[in-house]
Amino acid sequence: MTIRTGVIGAGVMGADHAQNLARNIGGASLSVIADIDAERAQASASALGARAVSDPLELIKANDVDAVVIASHDSTHAELVQACLDAGKPVLCEKPLAPTAAEAREVVEAERRVRDDQGRSLVSVGFMRRFDPGHLEVREAIEEGRLGRTLLLHGISRNVSAAPGATSESAVTNSAIHELDSFPWLLDSPITEVAWVPGILSTSEAASGLQDPAFMMMRLGSGVLATLELFLNAGHGYSTQCEVVGEHGTGRFLEPASVAYNADLKSYTQYPQDWRPRFAEAYRRQLQAWIHSLQEGTGSPLASAEDGLRATLAAEAMVASMHNGGAFTPVEQV
Amino acid sequence: MTIRTGVIGAGVMGADHAQNLARNIGGASLSVIADIDAERAQASASALGARAVSDPLELIKANDVDAVVIASHDSTHAELVQACLDAGKPVLCEKPLAPTAAEAREVVEAERRVRDDQGRSLVSVGFMRRFDPGHLEVREAIEEGRLGRTLLLHGISRNVSAAPGATSESAVTNSAIHELDSFPWLLDSPITEVAWVPGILSTSEAASGLQDPAFMMMRLGSGVLATLELFLNAGHGYSTQCEVVGEHGTGRFLEPASVAYNADLKSYTQYPQDWRPRFAEAYRRQLQAWIHSLQEGTGSPLASAEDGLRATLAAEAMVASMHNGGAFTPVEQV
Amino acid sequence: MTIRTGVIGAGVMGADHAQNLARNIGGASLSVIADIDAERAQASASALGARAVSDPLELIKANDVDAVVIASHDSTHAELVQACLDAGKPVLCEKPLAPTAAEAREVVEAERRVRDDQGRSLVSVGFMRRFDPGHLEVREAIEEGRLGRTLLLHGISRNVSAAPGATSESAVTNSAIHELDSFPWLLDSPITEVAWVPGILSTSEAASGLQDPAFMMMRLGSGVLATLELFLNAGHGYSTQCEVVGEHGTGRFLEPASVAYNADLKSYTQYPQDWRPRFAEAYRRQLQAWIHSLQEGTGSPLASAEDGLRATLAAEAMVASMHNGGAFTPVEQV
Amino acid sequence: MTIRTGVIGAGVMGADHAQNLARNIGGASLSVIADIDAERAQASASALGARAVSDPLELIKANDVDAVVIASHDSTHAELVQACLDAGKPVLCEKPLAPTAAEAREVVEAERRVRDDQGRSLVSVGFMRRFDPGHLEVREAIEEGRLGRTLLLHGISRNVSAAPGATSESAVTNSAIHELDSFPWLLDSPITEVAWVPGILSTSEAASGLQDPAFMMMRLGSGVLATLELFLNAGHGYSTQCEVVGEHGTGRFLEPASVAYNADLKSYTQYPQDWRPRFAEAYRRQLQAWIHSLQEGTGSPLASAEDGLRATLAAEAMVASMHNGGAFTPVEQV
Repeated sequence: MTIRTGVIGAGVMGADHAQNLARNIGGASLSVIADIDAERAQASASALGARAVSDPLELIKANDVDAVVIASHDSTHAELVQACLDAGKPVLCEKPLAPTAAEAREVVEAERRVRDDQGRSLVSVGFMRRFDPGHLEVREAIEEGRLGRTLLLHGISRNVSAAPGATSESAVTNSAIHELDSFPWLLDSPITEVAWVPGILSTSEAASGLQDPAFMMMRLGSGVLATLELFLNAGHGYSTQCEVVGEHGTGRFLEPASVAYNADLKSYTQYPQDWRPRFAEAYRRQLQAWIHSLQEGTGSPLASAEDGLRATLAAEAMVASMHNGGAFTPVEQV
Repeated sequence: MTIRTGVIGAGVMGADHAQNLARNIGGASLSVIADIDAERAQASASALGARAVSDPLELIKANDVDAVVIASHDSTHAELVQACLDAGKPVLCEKPLAPTAAEAREVVEAERRVRDDQGRSLVSVGFMRRFDPGHLEVREAIEEGRLGRTLLLHGISRNVSAAPGATSESAVTNSAIHELDSFPWLLDSPITEVAWVPGILSTSEAASGLQDPAFMMMRLGSGVLATLELFLNAGHGYSTQCEVVGEHGTGRFLEPASVAYNADLKSYTQYPQDWRPRFAEAYRRQLQAWIHSLQEGTGSPLASAEDGLRATLAAEAMVASMHNGGAFTPVEQV
Repeated sequence: MTIRTGVIGAGVMGADHAQNLARNIGGASLSVIADIDAERAQASASALGARAVSDPLELIKANDVDAVVIASHDSTHAELVQACLDAGKPVLCEKPLAPTAAEAREVVEAERRVRDDQGRSLVSVGFMRRFDPGHLEVREAIEEGRLGRTLLLHGISRNVSAAPGATSESAVTNSAIHELDSFPWLLDSPITEVAWVPGILSTSEAASGLQDPAFMMMRLGSGVLATLELFLNAGHGYSTQCEVVGEHGTGRFLEPASVAYNADLKSYTQYPQDWRPRFAEAYRRQLQAWIHSLQEGTGSPLASAEDGLRATLAAEAMVASMHNGGAFTPVEQV
Repeated sequence: MTIRTGVIGAGVMGADHAQNLARNIGGASLSVIADIDAERAQASASALGARAVSDPLELIKANDVDAVVIASHDSTHAELVQACLDAGKPVLCEKPLAPTAAEAREVVEAERRVRDDQGRSLVSVGFMRRFDPGHLEVREAIEEGRLGRTLLLHGISRNVSAAPGATSESAVTNSAIHELDSFPWLLDSPITEVAWVPGILSTSEAASGLQDPAFMMMRLGSGVLATLELFLNAGHGYSTQCEVVGEHGTGRFLEPASVAYNADLKSYTQYPQDWRPRFAEAYRRQLQAWIHSLQEGTGSPLASAEDGLRATLAAEAMVASMHNGGAFTPVEQV
């Protein structure tokens, strides 16, 4: 059974999803692309043999759309997910599920009502790191006890340059939110409190209102302390690192370089400029796993609406710590 | 347009192909699996929603089979490819195209006749390394001149243990044949002569009649010397390495480890036991590229029948060198 | 001019120093070894052609001792350094200079009086990391501005197992004290406040009263935040790591492995069991630099008594933070 | 007992040896430096508190010279070693012992006569790789059987640029001679035959008469095949690599980088420009071991005159292979 999909948002992320669904995902086809910029929608759709619309609600209701991917502006996520719920259609919403925990909670509650009625969960959230080979292998090593009981986790997230308009708050809610989902997922334990360490030097590339780099701490239910350096203007490359420290050993992701070079008195591997090459495989696997689950009627193996809410709650607690001198701040549990 | 496929051979390799075509390749579906072992065919087919047959010719002729994958015993390849040509259907044949150059040449000639009539090439050969990210990146670096003019190439191919019944000759025709295809492909230059260095120690794991490890040399049309250590009973892990040495630098594939561990006084990455995890991504990408080319009616980006013949001719010259004291032996050109 | 030396303490560290001074350091000779265990002193001395005494003061006063190395129990350091000052002899005292800042301050003051009288500084402290090639290269990269302005520093210090009787406090004053010296030395900026993060899981190998691992933070005068994971029972190997994060790039020490192995499905390098192989070269270079400075009458390039006091003051502030819920605690400046 | 030394040759190598003997080697002092360029000798000597002479024979005969280091032009080595033998003084001669095997054999025979008379061997040859930590660890791993029986050895030797006037022959006798000593030393088995593979592309940096890179093969008495890429104009860095392939695993030297950098979209370590930083530690350890052996009257642990002859015989066989179409050529045994 082929799952006919529609993609809302024809920006970088939406175009990638559309391309994958049209060409590289078994069991999927692409019917429609929606974008408020009608030309952009048309350009994407033509290249992929799909049709274009400007109204996302038209896409959601279309008869030849069995499932929806939302990759439009963050501010539209909650409303569009709600429309999918109303239409009874499965939806994969890019992170964040909603800009605020209050809105995310409304989505979760709406989704639970649908789930109660129909016995299945319709909402998945695009925390694609859950499908990155390095993340998966570390998680498996932890589950199998190969490292012993986990004690600490150190994360580093570096971008080449911050998005225009980035603030200390958006650095948490848009960037660190990946770790606020992946850390508890890796360790199978919720984040219970967080702290944002104040008073750090900023790079001269940081805009006014942006603390960059930032350093954060999280405590998990299991007692593990997790630390995170988030550096948006790191310049030297896009890099996602994580080391899990267990009683008997440690495991850390490797940057997925395919080739080592020798030149100019250096032995080197290359960093990507941004997240797309780094996580291209994770995005593809996430879409494939989602389509498989829809074909088979099994539960989605992706992050759930609750997971999306949890990450947003942790992000809001982190921002509260930021505004409160860096104190450890409890995270509301779902 | 969905390409409906059939897979001949339900062994390890065929089952992987079938699984991919049924589930993980965009634009493909799986209609039939054929195996002389009817039960094995049935088991694979049932799990994937396909039907099973025992006669491969029935599969080739089936109306719901647009394209065929051959993963049966090497000895059947040439004949089955011929049947696909007779049926006018595109075929992806696992390497080798044929056990001997003479048979491979017959396939090439038959395929040329069909191609002349219909204007398209129907035969692709499964030299999947051409779709491995490391191979592709090294090839691109060479093409772009980033390493300067290529001067040397060093390859290492190590398996954990040799297949039962392996001989010095089969080590060339079944294992080294990958490099006999990938080296000229990497450098875009044909192999013109080869030498098999005699008189090397064998591991005690080597069977009678098997020189293991073996050391080979190849000259390419560009003048490059390529060397290859082939060690089937290496024991320590499955490993495919290659360093290209250019005037201005070198590039080498990295073993694609996702995680680095610290434990037991060691800092380590893990080797796979065999080729499946190492090249799983290359196999998937090869199938996807093949399906795309069929959907779009463009030429196949996979190795061609001529490429299959070239590798077999190089392998036969290597075996001739082996039987002739290790002298450099010319390779017949296609 | 050969510098004739005496070594106080014939334990592991003292025996290494004695061996180096007797055999491996240009311009040095070894005259005497002192240990309260007369047999141990005699055993070491005989093997190296030196004489043994049990009274360290006898060694300090000996006519054939131009300079003294103190490697006896920590509790004796301050008093013995004072005796060297009284004798007007240069002394290299193993870290810590004194168990408490109060005692260290007395030494500093006494040393300043001697220095004022004689115009030279007599006391060096054995913070050998200042002579480790990795530390030196990172420091040079910072000084030359190759990484841009430094923003963050992440350190990791792991031992295989904690010394018997280790406590959370001794982990700071005996182990983390290395970083409390090396971090400000690397960045040429003093530590101004410190925090010891409470509430971390301990390994089951940790003794009662020992938080292990521990996580600490330091702010430096330059504004840099430094973090440190200290894990005494890490089990998997002795490892000293540090990454300096600058505006334009990062630099981190590599574990100094000489050989990479492939075996047992692993590609690995080996960790040492303890600090001796890791820092053997740093210890030798430190002694050689000290002897050179004595031969040439130039100032000692080793850590000074003031440096020893500074590290001890930072350690005491860290312990105060530990006993005060983890609050950032100011460090008294020298 | 301090060993008073004299160094013949005040070029790069001689100046390094002199500096080490004067300052960094326990048990040694430097009395005299000789160089045919009197000013150069004087400059070196003044800085190190030694005296300068222009006549090397004057140095050899000097009363305050117990042992001699020869680092003058290769063409003078044999004659000066002979003078040391005549004077009954231990000598460390830089490689090669002599430019030809015939001359090297004369030295060996003269040294045997002295040895017979006095019961000790006076001549050591400066094959410093025997004191490189990576070489030593690989040798130990082989001896202890950790890799199983050795089957193959792959070496790579790359320089940034060839010395002026380098020829294909001098590349063997001056550069590859290091491997012609270190490979049999690593495996404790002599080289029995060698082959120089003809017909390889040269870099455009290669001078007329210089095959660069070159590829060589060696068979050892144990049956092991060793291969060597020698690339003098490699440009990308000075690099000495070697992988020993055993039945149960492999071991290879790591380039001894102390720091890993992230910058400019690269994760990298740096290569040295030449051999001096790469082997500085090996040179120092070699000198120290030599001085210890002289102090203790034990046999020298350095390469012997016979070792020097063996390497020269292998080099001459390699050149013979070069001039004979690349045939395997037997090496005369000592």
